[in-house]
Amino acid sequence: MPSSRAFEDMWRDLAPVGRSASSGGYFRQPWASAETELRAWFAEACASRGLTVETDGIGNQVAWWEPSTPSDVPGVLTGSHLDSVLDGGAYDGPLGVVSALAAVDVLRDRGFEPSRPLGLGVFVEEEGSRFGRACLGSRLVTGATTWDEARELRDRDGVFLADAVADAGLDPSAGLLSVDRVGTFVELHVEQGRDLVDREVAVGLASEIWPHGRWRFDFAGQANHAGTTRMEDRRDPMLTCAMTVLAANKQARLAGQRATFGRLAVEPNGTNAVPSRVTAWLDARASSDDGLATMVAEISRQADDRAGRDGTSLVVTPESVSGSVGFDPDLAARLARLGDWPVVPTQAGHDAGILSDAGIPTAMLFVRNPTGVSHSPDEHAETADCLAGVDALADVLAELAGAPA
Amino acid sequence: MPSSRAFEDMWRDLAPVGRSASSGGYFRQPWASAETELRAWFAEACASRGLTVETDGIGNQVAWWEPSTPSDVPGVLTGSHLDSVLDGGAYDGPLGVVSALAAVDVLRDRGFEPSRPLGLGVFVEEEGSRFGRACLGSRLVTGATTWDEARELRDRDGVFLADAVADAGLDPSAGLLSVDRVGTFVELHVEQGRDLVDREVAVGLASEIWPHGRWRFDFAGQANHAGTTRMEDRRDPMLTCAMTVLAANKQARLAGQRATFGRLAVEPNGTNAVPSRVTAWLDARASSDDGLATMVAEISRQADDRAGRDGTSLVVTPESVSGSVGFDPDLAARLARLGDWPVVPTQAGHDAGILSDAGIPTAMLFVRNPTGVSHSPDEHAETADCLAGVDALADVLAELAGAPA
Repeated sequence: MPSSRAFEDMWRDLAPVGRSASSGGYFRQPWASAETELRAWFAEACASRGLTVETDGIGNQVAWWEPSTPSDVPGVLTGSHLDSVLDGGAYDGPLGVVSALAAVDVLRDRGFEPSRPLGLGVFVEEEGSRFGRACLGSRLVTGATTWDEARELRDRDGVFLADAVADAGLDPSAGLLSVDRVGTFVELHVEQGRDLVDREVAVGLASEIWPHGRWRFDFAGQANHAGTTRMEDRRDPMLTCAMTVLAANKQARLAGQRATFGRLAVEPNGTNAVPSRVTAWLDARASSDDGLATMVAEISRQADDRAGRDGTSLVVTPESVSGSVGFDPDLAARLARLGDWPVVPTQAGHDAGILSDAGIPTAMLFVRNPTGVSHSPDEHAETADCLAGVDALADVLAELAGAPA
Repeated sequence: MPSSRAFEDMWRDLAPVGRSASSGGYFRQPWASAETELRAWFAEACASRGLTVETDGIGNQVAWWEPSTPSDVPGVLTGSHLDSVLDGGAYDGPLGVVSALAAVDVLRDRGFEPSRPLGLGVFVEEEGSRFGRACLGSRLVTGATTWDEARELRDRDGVFLADAVADAGLDPSAGLLSVDRVGTFVELHVEQGRDLVDREVAVGLASEIWPHGRWRFDFAGQANHAGTTRMEDRRDPMLTCAMTVLAANKQARLAGQRATFGRLAVEPNGTNAVPSRVTAWLDARASSDDGLATMVAEISRQADDRAGRDGTSLVVTPESVSGSVGFDPDLAARLARLGDWPVVPTQAGHDAGILSDAGIPTAMLFVRNPTGVSHSPDEHAETADCLAGVDALADVLAELAGAPA
């Protein structure tokens, strides 16, 4: 079977899993049914290639293609994630996993034999869509987050992470994947912007990940009757929140950065009651650590000022903040020689950023997205571009795992 | 037992039902456990007074104290509701029901015998907190809303009204309360503003209910990645919504009216995604029908303008709109002679407004609320004021049901 056919077959198999018939988007939240099905699918896909999957105590997975001469040199890991944001696209995550499997098929078609271990990996809860902590799987295996801290996280229904993991049939006491064996990490990902479209190329390499983070804004006021309470007697946190949403947008525009309030929770959320509390999550990204800190400080300052005028109060809590990640420049330069691939930055966080922060030389490949739209049912990549991505990834893996150990 | 003791005993019995230990507020949503318990409590409270409750097919209740000489003249109904908003106060609704029972105790202590039927009533889903339609019970019995229309309403979990009613053990095909027997309706209610505080009196009478309504604002945009999507490439409905929230507040202040966005739903509501859709519910009230229409039109116009600038779209749907209700002026004048009770307007909707709209002479008594706060765990009334309210209601019922038939 040609490797392109294998790619398309895998893509077709994944298409219905966790898909909403109404929106066409994906709901693949970690430690729930769709994601459990995807984990089983990945194990089977590896098994059909003669590779054995290890699943760690929280659901991270890796399958190693060992060299014919056993080697204890560090290996090359490639992969991505299978979870999605709420109502997300098909490509963000799965494209990197399917491409990793397809790249192995390409390498075998070419008669390639690795001279160092070549691993295929899947990290859990990359999107943070359930427990609010992006890249949780890779953070745990690299020690950026400890299990004792993570186990107390709760999802929107109040379920503790530790219970969700146990309910998915996993046992954290069985231990986590070791990254000791990972000498290099390569992640292929659908592009989430339009750099490659503008440059008219199918594949690119990442230079860096912008600094980014999430901040929780808790606006508190006083619940009251929406009809009888005079406007001037109110302490309405919805007003403070609304102004902060607009301020964040304005500051990001002025600074050429990004700021988004995409998630809100209102209490009691009744039509005829002034709310007692509004919680809103700011996602902010900037091209420098200073730029990010300055923008978030300015948004917080304007929110505080408005809270003073509204008679409400505000607490801003950073939930996760990641500094700038510059991917290994020597590695990028070495890989750039393999193809005509531009080197572009990204504003999106990835497991690759976490592994890079942990000191592992890391590279990312991007595949063109014709609209740039991501985290949406409209996310897309053309099959021809995906197959170009598979070939590029195979070339990269051959370069990194083929050199004599 | 003195009637004041009976009032306090009833109040104590109700205190724990549906109360949140964390907020101290009440969650007494219709056709769910707390409200079912309250319905049983009301039946028992009537039974202990020798009165038999009829419960209709959707859970409205009435118990008639018949005159010793059977009479077919229309009766006098008093009562209120037992459901609450989400995280509401103890008084809104239950004060009118408990006061009705306590007023019967006062009348019996006085040796009063009705010369026309005197009914105690409870209407379901007055707040509209579950199915979004305020005064649903009274709307159904007066025909303002038909069952065929109402049965298709859904709650936040997608449950149809017809199923919720059936799950509560009720059978709408058993029929609804007839209002044919109701010659006059009197509802006692905690005040939800500060007119009585400012006037330093415990009890007042209602002159009118302001026109008011609920409008659903559906803002649609395009989901996208919160990091990689340039600000200028977004179609973010959260921005349009935020500006509309602020516009509503400003228009209400300028016009001396009321406008509130207390309920929001965001899709997909993920921190790292630009939302695809935000739905927000406007509660608006004004001192005249024209004033209400003008204010809502202006808010909608500003929202539309902003949607044009944000690349989003907007649909505004009226969910329920009630015109001005002037309570029967002859009845109010007759009752005002019974006490030193000021006659004040209210901006809150009540079952009394629905019955008045149906042509039933109707009056309302208000009991002072020291802070004016309502629809909140902070809602309050002093016991002395509540007992003054019971005495006032007893005087009103004696006047209306005591006159020879």
